[in-house]
Amino acid sequence: MRRFISHKTINLISKTTTSTVSSSSPNSPSLSPNSPLASLLRFFSTFHPSSMASDYSTTPITIDNINPKVLKCEYAVRGEIVSIAQTLQQNLKDNPGSHPFDEILYCNIGNPQSLAQQPITFFREVLALCDHPSILDKIETQGLFSADAIERAFQILEQIPGRATGAYSHSQGIKGLRDTIASGMKARDGFPADPNDLFLTDGASPAVHMMMQLLIRSENDGILCPIPQYPLYSASIALHGGTLVPYYLDEQTGWGLEISELEHQLKTAKSKGIDVRALVVINPGNPTGQVLGEANQREIVEFCKKEGLVLLADEVYQENVYVPDKKFHSFKKISRSMGYGETDISLVSFQSVSKGFYGECGKRGGYMEVTGFSPEVREQIYKLASVNLCSNISGQILASLIMSPPKVGDESYESFSAEKEAILSSLARRAKTLEDALNSLEGVTCNRAEGAMYLFPCINLPDKAIKAAEEAKTAPDAFYAKHLLNATGIVVVPGSGFRQVPGTWHFRCTILPQEEKIPAIVSRLTEFHKKFMDEFRG
Amino acid sequence: MRRFISHKTINLISKTTTSTVSSSSPNSPSLSPNSPLASLLRFFSTFHPSSMASDYSTTPITIDNINPKVLKCEYAVRGEIVSIAQTLQQNLKDNPGSHPFDEILYCNIGNPQSLAQQPITFFREVLALCDHPSILDKIETQGLFSADAIERAFQILEQIPGRATGAYSHSQGIKGLRDTIASGMKARDGFPADPNDLFLTDGASPAVHMMMQLLIRSENDGILCPIPQYPLYSASIALHGGTLVPYYLDEQTGWGLEISELEHQLKTAKSKGIDVRALVVINPGNPTGQVLGEANQREIVEFCKKEGLVLLADEVYQENVYVPDKKFHSFKKISRSMGYGETDISLVSFQSVSKGFYGECGKRGGYMEVTGFSPEVREQIYKLASVNLCSNISGQILASLIMSPPKVGDESYESFSAEKEAILSSLARRAKTLEDALNSLEGVTCNRAEGAMYLFPCINLPDKAIKAAEEAKTAPDAFYAKHLLNATGIVVVPGSGFRQVPGTWHFRCTILPQEEKIPAIVSRLTEFHKKFMDEFRG
Repeated sequence: MRRFISHKTINLISKTTTSTVSSSSPNSPSLSPNSPLASLLRFFSTFHPSSMASDYSTTPITIDNINPKVLKCEYAVRGEIVSIAQTLQQNLKDNPGSHPFDEILYCNIGNPQSLAQQPITFFREVLALCDHPSILDKIETQGLFSADAIERAFQILEQIPGRATGAYSHSQGIKGLRDTIASGMKARDGFPADPNDLFLTDGASPAVHMMMQLLIRSENDGILCPIPQYPLYSASIALHGGTLVPYYLDEQTGWGLEISELEHQLKTAKSKGIDVRALVVINPGNPTGQVLGEANQREIVEFCKKEGLVLLADEVYQENVYVPDKKFHSFKKISRSMGYGETDISLVSFQSVSKGFYGECGKRGGYMEVTGFSPEVREQIYKLASVNLCSNISGQILASLIMSPPKVGDESYESFSAEKEAILSSLARRAKTLEDALNSLEGVTCNRAEGAMYLFPCINLPDKAIKAAEEAKTAPDAFYAKHLLNATGIVVVPGSGFRQVPGTWHFRCTILPQEEKIPAIVSRLTEFHKKFMDEFRG
Repeated sequence: MRRFISHKTINLISKTTTSTVSSSSPNSPSLSPNSPLASLLRFFSTFHPSSMASDYSTTPITIDNINPKVLKCEYAVRGEIVSIAQTLQQNLKDNPGSHPFDEILYCNIGNPQSLAQQPITFFREVLALCDHPSILDKIETQGLFSADAIERAFQILEQIPGRATGAYSHSQGIKGLRDTIASGMKARDGFPADPNDLFLTDGASPAVHMMMQLLIRSENDGILCPIPQYPLYSASIALHGGTLVPYYLDEQTGWGLEISELEHQLKTAKSKGIDVRALVVINPGNPTGQVLGEANQREIVEFCKKEGLVLLADEVYQENVYVPDKKFHSFKKISRSMGYGETDISLVSFQSVSKGFYGECGKRGGYMEVTGFSPEVREQIYKLASVNLCSNISGQILASLIMSPPKVGDESYESFSAEKEAILSSLARRAKTLEDALNSLEGVTCNRAEGAMYLFPCINLPDKAIKAAEEAKTAPDAFYAKHLLNATGIVVVPGSGFRQVPGTWHFRCTILPQEEKIPAIVSRLTEFHKKFMDEFRG
């Protein structure tokens, strides 16, 4: 019988049903699920599921009718190049020798532990003990864990109501841990921090989203962002429907941040009717690796104050500074040292456990310090934090640990300092080696990685390469990056993913591969680049 | 001299500066930060910081100009009542005896470990070992941890590339852990699950937000939600600018979900020009505690299929069923058993480590299974997940553990089963005791808590109480809840926070306080209610 029920018949039945429902007044009973008609409908639909749609049916979800803001959002750091790399990696596993390289070298993302960097022992000891506190009193534990890690775990558990590491915490994070973080910030800055200003989050990304959500009302609201920028910002602004107002960092002066450029871009945006609400500054820079000078930071604070802009300070690389002539200063310290307090400037600082020398990306710990907003606005930020209840407790504990590491005299102090120093000095050496190697390539110039984890060299691509990229319908730097990947297994992110001065081409390369692999990276890159230029020089 | 500089003077200077900047062409140099005028400006602004604003300055952030969607969003579970409770708790600490009770009894939120429920030992053993893998090979570890926990930790580490628990994972979560979860789902449902359909998230909340973000384009897009509902849904829909299309659960039939009501509300919404995109079903129910019957679930699947609606199935309480006559069935199992596959229905199921018998809220682990979307749409979901890089790895590990607990023959099996059984049977007893107590109160009726962690009694409040609440500018059920809190220290959430049939009043009370405290809660509540009714009966 089944084959004799035509689609037409079913549509007819479907329409009949619809009109039955449609004709009922809002308060009269609708089609009963037990009515004969409804049963018939279910019977038919079992056989011809895809043909059932009533008149008042909704549009099925397709790529053409999802939220256009989602479509608009881009996130290059995990884009096409990485997908190709994953395929190549699988190829190498399935067919060793199938490519001219034997491993994929991921230089695309600031993810140190994925490249064999070991976690800081003290941090992991404390986390393990907090995860399983019932071993704290056992004698074997003393043989496995350092005394100060055990003591610290006890202290942290005391700070957690009911010692419950498995409970939702206060929406801003456990108060005792926020106290510890605030003390660490005071020690860093010389100015007090209020634990009530801290919002602990699952990494810094949700904190950035929360601020964008608060500030952006429509596409008429603008956020000043550095170009090049970390694509979280462009993605978050796109997702919240705002406008990214670019300001260009000056590559000639080591990615300098010029106030005149901020003023110019602000004015231009205003003239287009954009209500600019905030300025994003990434210091140390991502992808650009520069560390701002103190005087420059003062100018930036002055500018935000004068223009009534919220200063969104991405300070997640505060512990990653590699050159002796530069030092990290928080914008909080700068603004307070200028005499500016709560009522003078709205300042949000983002910090993360994913970066630093510890690089605990997988733990998703982080926080923001929110100052200079009215109590009413603060309450709204609190509400936003509450909708997701709280960030993960291990991440919260780790955020407190990075701001209160072992001190002189603690059992772990020496081993901790040795681990920290080994990582930071190695990163500095790797940065310098890669920087020198890049600068030795034809048509490539590369600023210093003063801080953060990246180099962002400029590649002067030959016209023939640009033309070939056009033909391949890809950006020239993506074209270069794909060729690099296919020839060497080295994964970098095309500069176009971070935006750049139109007509210039870059890529971002992390300084994170293991130090013993750096020479191979340098030689493979050098060889590839020579061949690429020979091929496309024209 | 300072006092002689009038605000007028400064404004004049400010305007001069502005016109200097304004008159420059976009490409000409703007006001140099080192110009004498700029220095003068900084000099003045140090003294009169709040008076500085150029003509093209932006509007400072106030409660009146933040994103109105944020203002519109409500989240009662952490609302006013909880703030009062926290103040009272502090009072009790500072001045013991200052209130007619000696402790605050939090019945407002599904947070079992905050109320002394102990974590499941096996889960925590594995988490601790994964946090600090270097102890895995040590002899002392065998004295501290069960053999199967050690074995499991080794297995999990093998599944993590480079054994790096501190690295960002794949945006959807570690593949090996997704494999484990998919196997657990297959064992539960009898139908296969594809690990590529799983997105691991920091608790279920971010997964819900991700789907709302994908589906909602404007206020013309609607999401069908049960009323009463868990306020995450109303909050997320508000934040993404959509419209909540309510469907009322029928309190008379134990919070029954009637298809006729869905049809009626869908039709009504359509007639208002709302494009309804999805149906949220919470099973077991929150705040209502009912467990859907299998036949009802089939009707719901049929309805979504027929109407082209995405079925968003909140199944986070799947392990919390307390009555022998009800059983949890996933919507995936139901739809597959009806013969509906990938191309028939778009189905998203949310799961969390925060609920179940384990109640690991602070770990923020969870996932969603996404089926029935086109590859293009799936790619957009992947992109959204990528913007936040990944969920926390401990939460990911825990999500795999809850779907693959110890099995018969494993060293931990018996203790694990005993812990699980003790928690679930105690919760069932607590639910029954509280339900009976509530039903014995004047004017209160309470459906069974068949599942989840809540009772949602209806209170027939006297007119005088409703009038008093009106005068106090508060909802009648919030009025009742505040009185209850102030008299007894018991914290419940007013029904108005979850929405309810207009003119009816409820509150949500968890079944989570320690079993030995339940008698005291019952007697305090009974005594309070009697007094309250005596006072307001009129």
